[in-house]
Amino acid sequence: MEVFIPQMAEQVGQNVTLQGWLNNKRSSGPISFLEIRDGQGFVQAVAAKKDLSETIWAEVEKATQESSVIISGVVAKHPKREGVYELQVTDFKIIQLAHDYPIAKKDHGPDFLMDHRHLWLRSRRQWAILRIRDAIKTAIHAYLHQEKFISVDSPIFTPNACEGATTLFKIPYFDLGDAYLSQSGQLYIEAAIASVGRCYDFGPVFRAEKSKTKRHLTEFWMMDAEGAFMDHEANLKNQEGLVRAIIRHCLANCQAELAILERNIDNLKKADAPFTRYTYTEAIKKLHELGSDIKFGEDLGNDDEGLLTKDSAVPIFIEKWPKSIKPFYMKRDPNNPDLVLNDDLIATEGGGEIIGGSEREDDFDLLSEKIAAEGLLGEEYQWYLDLRRYGAVPHSGFGIGLERVVRWISGTEHIRECIPFPRTIGRLRP
Amino acid sequence: MEVFIPQMAEQVGQNVTLQGWLNNKRSSGPISFLEIRDGQGFVQAVAAKKDLSETIWAEVEKATQESSVIISGVVAKHPKREGVYELQVTDFKIIQLAHDYPIAKKDHGPDFLMDHRHLWLRSRRQWAILRIRDAIKTAIHAYLHQEKFISVDSPIFTPNACEGATTLFKIPYFDLGDAYLSQSGQLYIEAAIASVGRCYDFGPVFRAEKSKTKRHLTEFWMMDAEGAFMDHEANLKNQEGLVRAIIRHCLANCQAELAILERNIDNLKKADAPFTRYTYTEAIKKLHELGSDIKFGEDLGNDDEGLLTKDSAVPIFIEKWPKSIKPFYMKRDPNNPDLVLNDDLIATEGGGEIIGGSEREDDFDLLSEKIAAEGLLGEEYQWYLDLRRYGAVPHSGFGIGLERVVRWISGTEHIRECIPFPRTIGRLRP
Repeated sequence: MEVFIPQMAEQVGQNVTLQGWLNNKRSSGPISFLEIRDGQGFVQAVAAKKDLSETIWAEVEKATQESSVIISGVVAKHPKREGVYELQVTDFKIIQLAHDYPIAKKDHGPDFLMDHRHLWLRSRRQWAILRIRDAIKTAIHAYLHQEKFISVDSPIFTPNACEGATTLFKIPYFDLGDAYLSQSGQLYIEAAIASVGRCYDFGPVFRAEKSKTKRHLTEFWMMDAEGAFMDHEANLKNQEGLVRAIIRHCLANCQAELAILERNIDNLKKADAPFTRYTYTEAIKKLHELGSDIKFGEDLGNDDEGLLTKDSAVPIFIEKWPKSIKPFYMKRDPNNPDLVLNDDLIATEGGGEIIGGSEREDDFDLLSEKIAAEGLLGEEYQWYLDLRRYGAVPHSGFGIGLERVVRWISGTEHIRECIPFPRTIGRLRP
Repeated sequence: MEVFIPQMAEQVGQNVTLQGWLNNKRSSGPISFLEIRDGQGFVQAVAAKKDLSETIWAEVEKATQESSVIISGVVAKHPKREGVYELQVTDFKIIQLAHDYPIAKKDHGPDFLMDHRHLWLRSRRQWAILRIRDAIKTAIHAYLHQEKFISVDSPIFTPNACEGATTLFKIPYFDLGDAYLSQSGQLYIEAAIASVGRCYDFGPVFRAEKSKTKRHLTEFWMMDAEGAFMDHEANLKNQEGLVRAIIRHCLANCQAELAILERNIDNLKKADAPFTRYTYTEAIKKLHELGSDIKFGEDLGNDDEGLLTKDSAVPIFIEKWPKSIKPFYMKRDPNNPDLVLNDDLIATEGGGEIIGGSEREDDFDLLSEKIAAEGLLGEEYQWYLDLRRYGAVPHSGFGIGLERVVRWISGTEHIRECIPFPRTIGRLRP
């Protein structure tokens, strides 16, 4: 019977067949310990020379790391480890024999590994991160649908910039001049809420980002959600609901993966509790107390985010920032016109900013003024202003950076491991 | 109590509040019939002058199409139509009064509507298509996860072309030369199967497509699935399972939407039955019988696809095409080296090709020869050849064009209505 490795638990004493790859092999004379992976999991198979024909034992001896194999055997409980199963090999066949697999057990530098990303993905660590990424995406789709958001895809080719033009990729577009690759679909899903009420996009966005940091990519995945008749307060509630749903989904579905990554599960569990809120003003005060020399009116750097969250078990909202450092579309705070009704959400354990959101300016005149004041091309924003001409409603939304969430949940240091094929200023291959 | 329109069925006799837009208004002296939409549905509200204060009635009289409104009233069953509910208005407030909404009830040309796509999305038809698109995406994610596929995102920026370079968008990429926008993530998810076994990508892809047809966009959504240890037969089974899951999901969840679009539900129900299979050779023979002058070795045109499926209640697979007209990565048919183990799936009712799939060439030597024979740059494909050097396995996959499926399921003539913000050779806005 053909099974996937996770199904072996239900087949103790039965003979099953696995199809996969030889992840590792240790031999001890007439016994060979074969670590097999099949995409769904990892298992140890024990091949004993005395139980196998000469032909099959020769095949076991010949098999190299990363050879593809079909292997049959009897499922047994691991003698010592609860919930772990083994395969007592009865048959073994190599499909394709791999020679000189370039990624050995020795340490490789990051450039070597990135050059071999198409193979590096096979490592336990990368397998675990890929699966956590998928789990996070699944949790996001599920939570948003539960809250009556539907997916509405925003375009990648856009004629204008959502947030400044300095980091835009520009591309000639037939006879229509230049197109820019989208940095955010927000303006587009703002249009769609007047049709479907609540919606989100979720796909790649692009920044011609010259930063070489552990948190920057030129191509990354962003989910933007937008809801009609949702104010700043509802927006925060929704963001918190989403992040806590992600944590719970991963804890429930990615135990093996989190164990491989040696992620501190307790810290994740603790983060699933009401989030802390600071106003920007409070955050600056707090940072000063903690020794930061940040000035009121400045954006928070990595160090500030780390300082602010280092003793917090839960993510921290920083809300109501100075309007001078925030984009034109954010709604001004009715209680203080120098501030806007926005928030950043800072993850725990050095995870940094994972969400940025705001209530949107829904007043036609105020929005027009802001567009003009920022020197944006008025005609490019007429369609966006139409949304305030015809049936404007209070509305809010936020964007969540997928790789940053993957980085945080998986406890990975560098963001390049949080996307299958990372693209940075210095990397376009493989 | 604030509710969404679909929840009104549970609130008969209760006073509820809706937040939404005035879709339409008909007045008959002291009675006003207000068609309200809230993103989740549409409902008729009946405002009677005699039941309302002067202020509220004045507000009702003032309200224009597309004004945003908050409206309260008592839920009543429609006197004649089963399952339909109305609101007997007790309160009515305009949030923002819309003046001169540009899309009137009169017929507009497609260019006018496309120029106003950000508003046109609000129409009943476009609302229905947006929701069906979301339902199809949800069905795809659910079916694939059920079959143990996980999402692995392929990159958009790529150094090489998957299927020929004539329709590629090229973009300067820092100091690394040119990048090309991906036309398909297939090669990348082929790499990932050796890690996760079965996976899919699902996102935008790009073709610098100069065709102006009802079926072409420059930016569209594609889902590519790939499975290790899946042969051609398993591949077809998987494609059929997915398409039938999509049909069932939409029939179960999009009744209102399909009704708005006047989609023939019976035809969709009938398509959820075992699909027909022709070999390419059989298809050509059949086409000749039907009067086509297609020659063996040619690709099928729209007309041929229509001819072949016109009397079929179910989609039709056409498998095992001449290798001369198919890409290098398709596995040759062991029974006939001039053919490949591939398939196209043609939808019913003029839906055209919605899927293309194949078993992949897993033999290093044969694949190397094909790459060389097609004049592709060998060095760009070394990483792809690595997948045959280290643990090659029989594997197959397919790509499904989201907009084409949306077009088919929703019964929409033109593909530009099947994506929220279409991009074509002549359109980059809004």
